[in-house]
Amino acid sequence: MSQPEKIKVALLGAGNVGSQVARILLEDSDLIRQRIGVPAELIGIAVRDTEAPRQVPLAAALLTDDAEVLIDQADVVIELTGGIEPARTRILRALHAGKPVVSGNKALLAKHGQELQAAANQNGVQLSFEAAVAGAIPILRPLRDSLAGDKITRVLGIMNGTTNFILDQMDTTGAQFNDVLKEAQRLGYAEADPTADIEGYDAASKAAIVASLAFHSEFTIDDVHCEGITSITAHDVQAAKDDGFVIKLLAICELDGDGVNIRVNPTLVPQEHPLASVHDAYNAVFVEAENAGELMFYGPGAGGAPTASAVMGDFVSLARRMVLGGAGVPESNHAALQSTPMAAVVSRYSVGLIVEDKLGVLANIARIFAEHGVSIQTMRQTKFEKDGQFSAALRIVTHQAADSNLRKTMAVVDSLDAVRSIASVIRVEGK
Amino acid sequence: MSQPEKIKVALLGAGNVGSQVARILLEDSDLIRQRIGVPAELIGIAVRDTEAPRQVPLAAALLTDDAEVLIDQADVVIELTGGIEPARTRILRALHAGKPVVSGNKALLAKHGQELQAAANQNGVQLSFEAAVAGAIPILRPLRDSLAGDKITRVLGIMNGTTNFILDQMDTTGAQFNDVLKEAQRLGYAEADPTADIEGYDAASKAAIVASLAFHSEFTIDDVHCEGITSITAHDVQAAKDDGFVIKLLAICELDGDGVNIRVNPTLVPQEHPLASVHDAYNAVFVEAENAGELMFYGPGAGGAPTASAVMGDFVSLARRMVLGGAGVPESNHAALQSTPMAAVVSRYSVGLIVEDKLGVLANIARIFAEHGVSIQTMRQTKFEKDGQFSAALRIVTHQAADSNLRKTMAVVDSLDAVRSIASVIRVEGK
Repeated sequence: MSQPEKIKVALLGAGNVGSQVARILLEDSDLIRQRIGVPAELIGIAVRDTEAPRQVPLAAALLTDDAEVLIDQADVVIELTGGIEPARTRILRALHAGKPVVSGNKALLAKHGQELQAAANQNGVQLSFEAAVAGAIPILRPLRDSLAGDKITRVLGIMNGTTNFILDQMDTTGAQFNDVLKEAQRLGYAEADPTADIEGYDAASKAAIVASLAFHSEFTIDDVHCEGITSITAHDVQAAKDDGFVIKLLAICELDGDGVNIRVNPTLVPQEHPLASVHDAYNAVFVEAENAGELMFYGPGAGGAPTASAVMGDFVSLARRMVLGGAGVPESNHAALQSTPMAAVVSRYSVGLIVEDKLGVLANIARIFAEHGVSIQTMRQTKFEKDGQFSAALRIVTHQAADSNLRKTMAVVDSLDAVRSIASVIRVEGK
Repeated sequence: MSQPEKIKVALLGAGNVGSQVARILLEDSDLIRQRIGVPAELIGIAVRDTEAPRQVPLAAALLTDDAEVLIDQADVVIELTGGIEPARTRILRALHAGKPVVSGNKALLAKHGQELQAAANQNGVQLSFEAAVAGAIPILRPLRDSLAGDKITRVLGIMNGTTNFILDQMDTTGAQFNDVLKEAQRLGYAEADPTADIEGYDAASKAAIVASLAFHSEFTIDDVHCEGITSITAHDVQAAKDDGFVIKLLAICELDGDGVNIRVNPTLVPQEHPLASVHDAYNAVFVEAENAGELMFYGPGAGGAPTASAVMGDFVSLARRMVLGGAGVPESNHAALQSTPMAAVVSRYSVGLIVEDKLGVLANIARIFAEHGVSIQTMRQTKFEKDGQFSAALRIVTHQAADSNLRKTMAVVDSLDAVRSIASVIRVEGK
């Protein structure tokens, strides 16, 4: 390909991030021209409804509801619509026409990433998606390039801003989940339908994308064990605090023998751990590699302008490549690792039980844990009276135990007459 | 260029980092082949003395003292010797022969970076140097690529592990600078000749490299205002602690009107600031950009294996590019900003004075500050007696003031009969 005179950009979507990308392409066109070597021209923005009100004023002449025609006229496509279809078909249309694509669509990439990547490789063009994980924080590029000569052993972090905001508020105010969720919705931190965030699906999509890059293998969201935060109560948060912990929703991808365990779950993090001081909607990701050691990346995990910054970084990088010639770097999947089942995953647990206040109950429960190979680190008992009934709240923190052993233990504990309820079972990270 | 069958690597230097790069190239050759697409063969290691003892056992057949012949036989050159010459001449030899170069030589890059970059651009090859700044922490690539579509306003951080180790030890143990330096040398954290670290030159080199990339301009170490930590006393550290601060050696590069101010100086950082909890020889860098907001990168700032990880990331990335074809991405210097003088730089200051314990001294000093436009935020007086003489230790923390105003203030204060000595003048970052 000879050097282009300019690069024509088609933008799909004009929402929170899309409108900011349009603004930057228009406002900073001089700077972008200088960095790429040739001008980048925003030739149009495909939207569902060209008449809908916009957060950022966009020239009516730029708006179109015919995405296909727009894609066919462009040199590069930036897809920021979200959802599986028609995003998937449109991205494939661009890639098959030899046009590089920048996308921030984590749900699509976590489900059909392999298909899209194969289309990109087949056509020798770049598919970039830094904006799909952790907003403005550069995390995919460090995994893909900076650590390309190292062996990553674990990636762990807070990858969803909405749930971090909710858990942080619960920790600060002592309020219940549902009340904080309503407040988060009012403030715009949570969507009207918060399912994808609070059930952990959003973080699970990001974990699948991260694990694929970190371990040079192909993972989808179906490989991710996913638990959300809907069952976390104000009582859990307070009990964690009393024990010196903060509850965070962590995404964890770790090498596990010849496989990779990928999971999203609420986790107790020691108060002195750096992840414990990640507040509001911020994200933070730890990467552990054999030679590099432990690295940490921190920043705004969401928001229009920060995410648009990640999109623009991808765009300028691949546009520079178009000007210089040479194919895009294909994704590496040489390791072809499989995801491992949860049963074998080893971690510490914090277990909350409500039991009858009766002699021998505590000893009996301790025996059941021991019989299943789950070693108890600390056990704390608080007696209380409710409706004339005497009970004890037990809080047990275990040493490292296999998920399957813990599950078997809890099944037996649950069957005891003296156990009124299992209040919570939450994993623990850190020393 | 047609796709090479293999990539022949010449390694210059077998010290702390070089020997680790050799180890990785040999031990992880399968993995590197899979990531690049073709094998990478270490064809030789140029050293000064082929008979010298090595930290990592290296096959004698690989060692040579003829770097020029080795470079001429290679496809890629990895330079890890340090110092200006012969490193500069050797890198130019490789670049002019169309061979990409990876270097970790911060002193060279901070002095002759423009000349080397011009040679790389002229020959369409890549010159990569992630390892020159902050060890394993990916910082140059995020500045260069991830933030390529954003406007960086400030980069600030701890970029020298040795001085952070020393200051951290002084803070923890209360010991004097010289004692901690000796201990750091004994433990291998400081070199036998520690000048480059403790005088701030090493951090200043890194600041020049970072500023050039962040602001798309050409800066050398001569553009960096540099103050080391040799004058920091145990008393300064204790006084900072009493006021809720920690002393850190910060490298700061910030957009300042139409220029960039680049400086390295000891700085008071509030204890609750994330930089305050960077311990031992770790590094941490904050990047502020218009759209991305504030990002933080943290990790091991030195050490053989971590720095080798950064070298290998550069190597695998550019080797992939060689396999795919297309020129290396040239450095962008379109902004062509100049460095600004210190006089106009505005910051807060912490000033320590020893004065006569006499009525009116405090008021007189406060008046001098005010007359020079330096507003005092807090003033603390501690009286003490030494050798029968009554004195007062004054600790003044100012609001934001121009460097030139503060200097004039201190000159007048110093001339007062009632002022016995100026104990310290240290800048303050954070709220």
